[in-house]
Amino acid sequence: MGEKIEVVVLGAGYGGIMTAVNLQKILNLNEASITLVNKYDYHYQTTWLHENAAGNLHHDRTRIPIDEIINTDKVHFIIDEVVSIKPEKKKVKLETGELYYDLLVIGLGFETETFGIPDLKENAFTIGNIDSARLIREHLEYNFAMYHHENRKNPGRLNIVVGGGGFTGVEFLGELANRIPELCEEYDINKSLVRIINVEKETTVLPEVDPQLAEYAMTSLESRGVEFITGASFKHCAPDRIVYEKEGKDKEIATYTTVWAAGVRANSIVQDSGFDHCDGKIAVCADMRAPGHDDVFAVGDCALVVDEKTGHPYSPSAQIAVQQATTVANNIKAHLDGNSTFEKFEPRLLGTVTSLGNNDAIGDVFNNWKLFGWKAVLMKKIIDNRYLFKLGGLGLVMRKGKFNIFY
Amino acid sequence: MGEKIEVVVLGAGYGGIMTAVNLQKILNLNEASITLVNKYDYHYQTTWLHENAAGNLHHDRTRIPIDEIINTDKVHFIIDEVVSIKPEKKKVKLETGELYYDLLVIGLGFETETFGIPDLKENAFTIGNIDSARLIREHLEYNFAMYHHENRKNPGRLNIVVGGGGFTGVEFLGELANRIPELCEEYDINKSLVRIINVEKETTVLPEVDPQLAEYAMTSLESRGVEFITGASFKHCAPDRIVYEKEGKDKEIATYTTVWAAGVRANSIVQDSGFDHCDGKIAVCADMRAPGHDDVFAVGDCALVVDEKTGHPYSPSAQIAVQQATTVANNIKAHLDGNSTFEKFEPRLLGTVTSLGNNDAIGDVFNNWKLFGWKAVLMKKIIDNRYLFKLGGLGLVMRKGKFNIFY
Repeated sequence: MGEKIEVVVLGAGYGGIMTAVNLQKILNLNEASITLVNKYDYHYQTTWLHENAAGNLHHDRTRIPIDEIINTDKVHFIIDEVVSIKPEKKKVKLETGELYYDLLVIGLGFETETFGIPDLKENAFTIGNIDSARLIREHLEYNFAMYHHENRKNPGRLNIVVGGGGFTGVEFLGELANRIPELCEEYDINKSLVRIINVEKETTVLPEVDPQLAEYAMTSLESRGVEFITGASFKHCAPDRIVYEKEGKDKEIATYTTVWAAGVRANSIVQDSGFDHCDGKIAVCADMRAPGHDDVFAVGDCALVVDEKTGHPYSPSAQIAVQQATTVANNIKAHLDGNSTFEKFEPRLLGTVTSLGNNDAIGDVFNNWKLFGWKAVLMKKIIDNRYLFKLGGLGLVMRKGKFNIFY
Repeated sequence: MGEKIEVVVLGAGYGGIMTAVNLQKILNLNEASITLVNKYDYHYQTTWLHENAAGNLHHDRTRIPIDEIINTDKVHFIIDEVVSIKPEKKKVKLETGELYYDLLVIGLGFETETFGIPDLKENAFTIGNIDSARLIREHLEYNFAMYHHENRKNPGRLNIVVGGGGFTGVEFLGELANRIPELCEEYDINKSLVRIINVEKETTVLPEVDPQLAEYAMTSLESRGVEFITGASFKHCAPDRIVYEKEGKDKEIATYTTVWAAGVRANSIVQDSGFDHCDGKIAVCADMRAPGHDDVFAVGDCALVVDEKTGHPYSPSAQIAVQQATTVANNIKAHLDGNSTFEKFEPRLLGTVTSLGNNDAIGDVFNNWKLFGWKAVLMKKIIDNRYLFKLGGLGLVMRKGKFNIFY
């Protein structure tokens, strides 16, 4: 038993869990000892969290118990938090122990990047995990409940500020636009008193997508009451207000709910553990291994992969993480087989689909095919269900999939 | 039109709404002008609020839009808040106007009595109306959501203190005992971390009921995790803790959720308006009129009625308020008919039934028939449905009634 090669996968996000699932498929029982470490006993779909945060989808739909996906005869699953990695000793320090590895896969995901904006970390909410998404849902409801309770009506309770108009910010705005009328009914609040405000640094939201699509998104959201403040940057975030700067002037918005969706960076464990990094990410080799560390792979938000055609790094996404996991698993298999030829990671990106609430979306897929409205909504749900199929087969699609595709 | 007698009913609680409903039944269209004033556009069942507060019953089940009960051809309904009554001028001052009356019915309900306990009014929650009940529900959920969000786990988020073990306190404890396991599942919290603590001044809860029943109630609640601290009095209530005194010593409990259910008094408008009062209530004459004010009736929490047999006042309850409303309406009719003989109010009290959650209760009914368990649960629901029938007929029972009687 001591002879078996120890493969350790850190994190059960898109990259980590799919690496483990792939390994349990392609490896025989005795080929290696596989250990998966995760902070929670569940995997969750980061790309659905904005729906949980708005209160439109229960978080139990978004998370999947790991023992429902992982064959525990083949993969040893440990619930623990990673503290640090010591590559020189081939060890991983956990909150409550230590692991030795022969081969390591780092899939520790992202953390919030606040760019040093004062008090943002303390006072803004982020849509990072099940706990934080659930908290935003409750925080919104609590403030709506408080509004009537106070004799002096406080507009800050009903103003919701979303910092950043990237994919996460826009998708959350779409969910809020759907949710707010329901909340108003629940708490007897006049809808016209509620403001949903997006503060974005660039002159448009979704600067990465086609301008026509970005404009469609803004129009769709504005028609449902979202206000956009573009060309504006956050300067300060207090518990009861934010300050932003636009055209050289500071302006203030009273709000108890600031959701920061403007920046993420790789888990700081990566850089703290002494790997060469580029803004916290490991600029992996073509086979997804860390330069100088033949026994360490990185996936998802912890890995930096450059698009050779454009020279720019690919944006992190669930899609690319899932594809990387295939390469990583295949290369671990090659390593175990003593094969010296490793697979080169080549993303086959479908494109992006961004939801704008439950009944609108935009998509830029299959090399510049632009989608709006119900077609994009449908495409989004197909993508979501396809992932569940990869992860846990048809059973998982039936349990957690999205089938309400025609409303 | 100016000749019609103006009957004004203040408040649409049990006493006020039933007075209005009775009046619209027994008066012809042109006999009088009836005006009902209420702060909200709905009537609510105060005796169900503890279920809303715990989160076991949606508040829309507890409230009934007034225009569903009142025939607006017969009763003029005004949504406004009463500021003061000027009996010498026969006028009522509202937030946004003034009303003249020939006959007045005061059914303005109760307010919280905090007995001068420092900071209790500011920091404790009360189960007084739809807004405050809904807020308790959200406050509980918010604290459970926050518990995981904080790195340093704060037991105060999971400790719930209920001040007072009277009917409201005990019924709320019962609902909490049912709700907490659900909340623990929703927020991934180990049930053993949650404490539900009752602080009661007397040596037992429910000092007004038969000791055998009170003991049954305590045992039932303790078996579901409720802790009782009896013979203890509140000394201070901060946002994050309470201090109580027991056997001469001060003790502290860390809690973000203190629900004060230990005292109510009549709406202070009664005493502020210059009526003779006894602890804020009008000690009404046998015909429910205020002494010295032949044109003013009081019902419910604003009226004090003494039990001639015992010499003690009757405890305020929905039951007695509803019965008073019949007498008040009949006496208004007598006044309009020029009849000099007024009906004397004689309560026919069924007894009390106290719920201990959704599947247990105690009752002392029909002159000392003691009920426990499912029989008391059934009796409670029959009483609730019977009230709805009185208020709005079979249609209302079907819409808002409680039929889940066998679980």
